[in-house]
Amino acid sequence: MNDILGICRRNIVRAPREAVERLARFGVATVHEAMGRVGLARPVLHPIYPGAHACGTAVTVLLQPGDNWMMHVAAEQIQPGDIVVAACTTDNADGFFGDLLATSYRARGCVGLVIDGGVRDVRDLREMAFPVFARAAHARGTVKATLGSVNVPVVCAGALVNPGDVVIADDDGVVVVPAADAAAVADAAAKREANEHAKRARLAAGELGLDIYDMRGPLAKAGLRYID
Amino acid sequence: MNDILGICRRNIVRAPREAVERLARFGVATVHEAMGRVGLARPVLHPIYPGAHACGTAVTVLLQPGDNWMMHVAAEQIQPGDIVVAACTTDNADGFFGDLLATSYRARGCVGLVIDGGVRDVRDLREMAFPVFARAAHARGTVKATLGSVNVPVVCAGALVNPGDVVIADDDGVVVVPAADAAAVADAAAKREANEHAKRARLAAGELGLDIYDMRGPLAKAGLRYID
Amino acid sequence: MNDILGICRRNIVRAPREAVERLARFGVATVHEAMGRVGLARPVLHPIYPGAHACGTAVTVLLQPGDNWMMHVAAEQIQPGDIVVAACTTDNADGFFGDLLATSYRARGCVGLVIDGGVRDVRDLREMAFPVFARAAHARGTVKATLGSVNVPVVCAGALVNPGDVVIADDDGVVVVPAADAAAVADAAAKREANEHAKRARLAAGELGLDIYDMRGPLAKAGLRYID
Amino acid sequence: MNDILGICRRNIVRAPREAVERLARFGVATVHEAMGRVGLARPVLHPIYPGAHACGTAVTVLLQPGDNWMMHVAAEQIQPGDIVVAACTTDNADGFFGDLLATSYRARGCVGLVIDGGVRDVRDLREMAFPVFARAAHARGTVKATLGSVNVPVVCAGALVNPGDVVIADDDGVVVVPAADAAAVADAAAKREANEHAKRARLAAGELGLDIYDMRGPLAKAGLRYID
Amino acid sequence: MNDILGICRRNIVRAPREAVERLARFGVATVHEAMGRVGLARPVLHPIYPGAHACGTAVTVLLQPGDNWMMHVAAEQIQPGDIVVAACTTDNADGFFGDLLATSYRARGCVGLVIDGGVRDVRDLREMAFPVFARAAHARGTVKATLGSVNVPVVCAGALVNPGDVVIADDDGVVVVPAADAAAVADAAAKREANEHAKRARLAAGELGLDIYDMRGPLAKAGLRYID
Amino acid sequence: MNDILGICRRNIVRAPREAVERLARFGVATVHEAMGRVGLARPVLHPIYPGAHACGTAVTVLLQPGDNWMMHVAAEQIQPGDIVVAACTTDNADGFFGDLLATSYRARGCVGLVIDGGVRDVRDLREMAFPVFARAAHARGTVKATLGSVNVPVVCAGALVNPGDVVIADDDGVVVVPAADAAAVADAAAKREANEHAKRARLAAGELGLDIYDMRGPLAKAGLRYID
Repeated sequence: MNDILGICRRNIVRAPREAVERLARFGVATVHEAMGRVGLARPVLHPIYPGAHACGTAVTVLLQPGDNWMMHVAAEQIQPGDIVVAACTTDNADGFFGDLLATSYRARGCVGLVIDGGVRDVRDLREMAFPVFARAAHARGTVKATLGSVNVPVVCAGALVNPGDVVIADDDGVVVVPAADAAAVADAAAKREANEHAKRARLAAGELGLDIYDMRGPLAKAGLRYID
Repeated sequence: MNDILGICRRNIVRAPREAVERLARFGVATVHEAMGRVGLARPVLHPIYPGAHACGTAVTVLLQPGDNWMMHVAAEQIQPGDIVVAACTTDNADGFFGDLLATSYRARGCVGLVIDGGVRDVRDLREMAFPVFARAAHARGTVKATLGSVNVPVVCAGALVNPGDVVIADDDGVVVVPAADAAAVADAAAKREANEHAKRARLAAGELGLDIYDMRGPLAKAGLRYID
Repeated sequence: MNDILGICRRNIVRAPREAVERLARFGVATVHEAMGRVGLARPVLHPIYPGAHACGTAVTVLLQPGDNWMMHVAAEQIQPGDIVVAACTTDNADGFFGDLLATSYRARGCVGLVIDGGVRDVRDLREMAFPVFARAAHARGTVKATLGSVNVPVVCAGALVNPGDVVIADDDGVVVVPAADAAAVADAAAKREANEHAKRARLAAGELGLDIYDMRGPLAKAGLRYID
Repeated sequence: MNDILGICRRNIVRAPREAVERLARFGVATVHEAMGRVGLARPVLHPIYPGAHACGTAVTVLLQPGDNWMMHVAAEQIQPGDIVVAACTTDNADGFFGDLLATSYRARGCVGLVIDGGVRDVRDLREMAFPVFARAAHARGTVKATLGSVNVPVVCAGALVNPGDVVIADDDGVVVVPAADAAAVADAAAKREANEHAKRARLAAGELGLDIYDMRGPLAKAGLRYID
Repeated sequence: MNDILGICRRNIVRAPREAVERLARFGVATVHEAMGRVGLARPVLHPIYPGAHACGTAVTVLLQPGDNWMMHVAAEQIQPGDIVVAACTTDNADGFFGDLLATSYRARGCVGLVIDGGVRDVRDLREMAFPVFARAAHARGTVKATLGSVNVPVVCAGALVNPGDVVIADDDGVVVVPAADAAAVADAAAKREANEHAKRARLAAGELGLDIYDMRGPLAKAGLRYID
Repeated sequence: MNDILGICRRNIVRAPREAVERLARFGVATVHEAMGRVGLARPVLHPIYPGAHACGTAVTVLLQPGDNWMMHVAAEQIQPGDIVVAACTTDNADGFFGDLLATSYRARGCVGLVIDGGVRDVRDLREMAFPVFARAAHARGTVKATLGSVNVPVVCAGALVNPGDVVIADDDGVVVVPAADAAAVADAAAKREANEHAKRARLAAGELGLDIYDMRGPLAKAGLRYID
C-alpha cells in the first residue's frame, strides 16, 4: 500500500508561471466560476486581515494535530511564487505558524499561507502584510514529534490540493486550480470578467438583471405569480 | 392552503418614511431596547466590514439553497430607501449576492442587504461601501432554477420579517421593527437615548451604576454577601 | 458546602504591579510559551477590533444567563490596572456589556474586558478604544434579577481564572498567569523574546529552521523519506 | 406598539381535531412535501429517544434565557391533544423542562414538547415515553424571574408557529401546519402517500427512478454525459 | 512557577466512599440543584449509549492533542470506584480511548470515563456496558509522544475538576462535586428528591405548578396579562 | 480543462471482492490503524441507528445543494456489494435520500449509504435496517434541476473517495481504503487484530499498558515526575 505519511517530495510539477500570473489578477469568485463552479474550499478559512490576497503554486503540507514539524520541512521546498497549503490529519486549531515561520517563508519567496488550522502572532503577520488564510487565530503552541508529509495530495477545508496546483485566496475564500488547467482557467476567467464589465455598466444604469439575462420567460414558465 | 413559494408581491405597505429616518439615527441595541427587548435576529449575521450600518424598509426574499434567482426578481421591487432581507428555505451559505447585484440594487435605491446566506465579491462590496450583513463570505456560485418568493413574510436568522417592516443593522446585529410600530419605537428610542446621555456623564465621573440605578437594596434583598 | 454564588469578595491579592507591567510588553503567544504552553482560553473569544490588546489583574465575574447584574457589582471592585474577566454559568451570548458600562469601568481604571458572552455598542467601544474580547457582538438586552458572584474563581472559555491573576489578551487569544507566577513568567518571556530576536534575523537571511533548530537528525530518525 | 412579552392568551383557535388526527398518521417528511416543501424547523431539534413521534395543536411559549417560568403558565392553557412549542428570546440550552413538568403536562392531556432549548431528566422522560424534541439534554437549572409569553406567535428553530397550528415531530424533524391549512394538508399528504405506495413496489422490484419518473430525457437535455 | 505538565500525582484525597455511594443514587440534575445550581460541564459530552450512568471519585488526566500517553499513566492510579476524567490542552476529538483501555480500566475497578475528546470502539464499549461520556465517537488514532499530566486540576468541558472530586454523569450531562462537599450535597439531594416525590403526585393528579409553587401572585406582580 | 460536473462514469474498477469481504470483518478503527492512521472522514457523519455497519465498494455521487437528481442517476450504476458515497459541492443538510431511494438501492444490491448531507424517513430506514451514515436527519425535500456527477473522485466529510474504493462505516466513523490497497490493508488489519487479542487478555488480568508497551522508560526520559 502507498504510504502518505513520512514523505517529503522534492520534485513537483508547478503550474506554468505565466498562467499563475494571469490567474493572480482575478478574484476567487471569478476563478471558481471560470472552472465551472468547482474547486472551492469550505468557507471556514478566513483572511487574518481584510483584503488579504494570495495566488501561487502549492507546496502542500499534511500536519499532525498539535505538531508543526512539517511546516519546517516544507520551508526548504518553497520556491519563489509558491503558496503553502497546510492540511491536518484531524480537526485542530493550534497555532502551527507564526511570525518566525512567516519570516522564513518570505525569505524563500513564499507568497502566502492557506492552513486548515490555527496561526499566531497575527499582529506581526498583519504588519508584515503576509497573507494568511486560517481556521483560527490561536496562540496555542505546538510540538515537533510526529511525522506528517510535504508535497502529497491533501484535502484542505474540503478541497483537494495537489502539489503544484494554483491556489488563490481572498476575502471570498480559497479556490484550487489543477496545474494542468491553469492556462485554460485563466482564459475563461478573462472572458468572464470582460463579460461582467459590460453587465456592470448596464446594471449601474438601472437596467434589471431580469431583462439583461432574459429571465422573465423562464420565471413565468416556472410558475412565478405576481400579486398586487 | 396558502402558497408561500412562487410568489412576488408588488404592493407592500412600507413603514412611514419619516419614522424610518428617525430610526436610522439609532443603533440596533437602542432600538431593540426601545421595542421592549424583542425583534433581534440571532447573532449569526455579520457586517462584511466594521462600522457597516443600514436602515430601510424591507423587501423580503425567500431563497432556495444554491439558487439566487429570486434576488433578481427582488431587484425590480426595490424602491429608494429599501433594504433587502433574504432568508433561505434551509441553511445554506452559498454566494447568493455579489458586486453585480449590488450595483443593480444600489441603482434602484437600495440601502443595504441582510441575508441569512453567503455573499461574494466582498472586496468590491467594501469598496462600494454597500452595507451587507451575511452569514458568510463565500465565492460559491448559484443557479437560477427553482422558485422562491419575494415580499412574503420570512424568518431571517430567527427573526420574523414582514415586507415593509423597518430593518436596522449594524455591528451589534439586526433588529426588525414592525411597520405599524415604527413611529412609536422611534419615539421610545429617542427617549431612551436622552436618558442614557445623562447616565453616561455620571458614570464617566466615577459614579457607580450600583448607586445610579439604586441596586444596592435589591442586591442585599436577593442575598448578596460581601466578603473581605 | 462552599457557596460560590451570591458572593462579592472585596479583598483580593493582585499580582505585583511591576510584573504586570513587564508582562504587558509581550504578546499572548510569548507568555503562553513562557508558561510552558498552558494557561490559554479556547479560541472562541475575539477582539472587537483588530489589534486590541489588554493586560491587567483580574477582577472576576460569574454571570447568570441573560443577566448582567454582577457586571455592576464588579464595577465597584475595580482598581486601576484591573481587567474584568466575566464567565457565565451556562453558554449565553447576550449583550452583557455596552458603552455605559465601558464608560464606568474606564472611569474606575479598568484596562479591558474578557467575557465569555456577548457585548454591544461595539462601534462606541471601538471609538473609545476600550479593548474587549468577547464570544459575540449581540445587541440582546439583559435583566438584573439573579445573583452570580464577583471575585470567585471562574472558568472563562475553558481557562481557570482566579481573582488577581494576570490576564493578557490580544489578536492571538487570552492567556492567564497565576498571580504568584507573574514575575517568573515575565522573566521567562523576556528570555524567550530575546532568543527569538536572534532567530528571526537568521531566518530572514534565508537560513532554515531545519538547520537552526537541528531538526534534520531527528526527522531522519523518525523515518522521514525524501522522494524526488 | 404591540407588546409580545408579558402576555398569556387564553383563547386560541385550534386546528380542527379531525384534521389533526389525520395528520398524525403521516411522517414529518410527507407533511412537509404535502405543504409544498415549507414549514420545517431547522434540523437542530432532536428526539430524546429514537422513534419519538408527536402530533398536536400548538400551545406556544416564549421563554427568557435561563428562566422557565412561562412553562408553568403554559401548563394551565393545555387542552387534551395539545403539543407545547417553546421558543426562547435568545439561544439558550438550559434545562427548562424535566420530569415534574412532563408529569403535569401529561396530566393536562399534552401529547409532547418541541423546545428550542434544553431539557433534563431525560431518562425519566424516556421511561414515561413522553416525546420531547429539544436542542440539548442539559441538567442546568432555571429560575422564575422574568416574564415571557404564552400563546403568542413564536419562531422556534427557524419555524414560525402560531398558537393552534398543528405541529408534527418525529426522527426527521419538526413541521408546522397552519391551523387553517390542516385539512387541506392532510388531504394532500394522503394523496402523496398513496402515490408513494405504488412507487415503492416498483422500486423494490428493481425498476429505476430514472424510468419511473421519466428523468432520462431531462438529464440528457441538461447535458449529462455517460462515460465508459 | 508551578508546573502543571509532566506530572503524575499518586496520593490524592478521594471523597468519602459513603458519600459517593449516596450520590450515586441521584441523577445529575438533582445533584446540580442540590449544589445550588453549579458544577455542571457544558452540554457537549454525550453518553455513548442511552441510559449510561456513572458516579465515582475522579482520577484526572490532562491530555495533549492527538496523544493518549497519559491515559496509560492514569490507569495505574485508578482505585476501585474511581471515574477517569480527561481534559485536553486544546480542542481535539481524536480517539484517545477504546476497548483495550476500557478493559484495562475496568480491571482496575474504574466505573466510567468522562472525556473532553473522542473515543472509539464504541460498539465494544456499549457491549461491555462501560459508561463513557465523550465529545465524539471517532476512530482517529493517537500517538504517545508528549507529556500531559495525571491528577492535576483540570477544566473538562468548562467544569473544574480536582482529583478526588465526585463526578456523576448520565443522559443529562456531567456534574462535579468537590470532595469536601460530597456528604453535604448528598444530604441536600436526598432532601430535594423527597420533596419532589410529593410534588410529582400532586402534579400527576392535575394540580398546577402555578398553585403548588404559589406563582400567581409573583406573576401578577411582574405584570403578566391574561388576554382572552 | 477536465470537467467534473455533468458526468456519469459507468465503468469503474472495484476493489477485489475477496478483499472487501475480509475488510468487512473489521471495525473502522482497526482498518484506519492498519492503513497507517489515514483515510478517515471527519467525525460529522453519524449512523442513523446505533450499531449500523456497512462495508462495500464505492459508487460516488457529487450532489448540488438542495438537489438529489444524481442519487437517481447513481442507482443505475450500483452493483451488488456497492456502497453509495455522496458528497455535495457545498455544505447542505437537506434530505437527499429517504425510504423510496433506499428501497431502490437495496433492490440493486447496495449495502449502505455514506452521505455528507441529510436523509429522511429515518424510522423507515431503521426498520429496513438499511445502514446510513449522514450529517443530519432532515425532512427537507429536494429538487431535480442541476447536474452533479456520478463516479468521479469526491471529497466526503474531508475524505477523498475514488469510485471503487472500499468504504467501511460503523459507530466510530467512516474510513476509505483505496481499491489497490484493499488486500494489503485487510492483511494488516488481521495482523493487528490478532495482536490486540493477546493484549486484551493481559489487560483484563490487570496488567498495565505501561508495562505491556514498555512505556516507563520513555516516560521517564520525557521527564514525567511522580509526586506523592
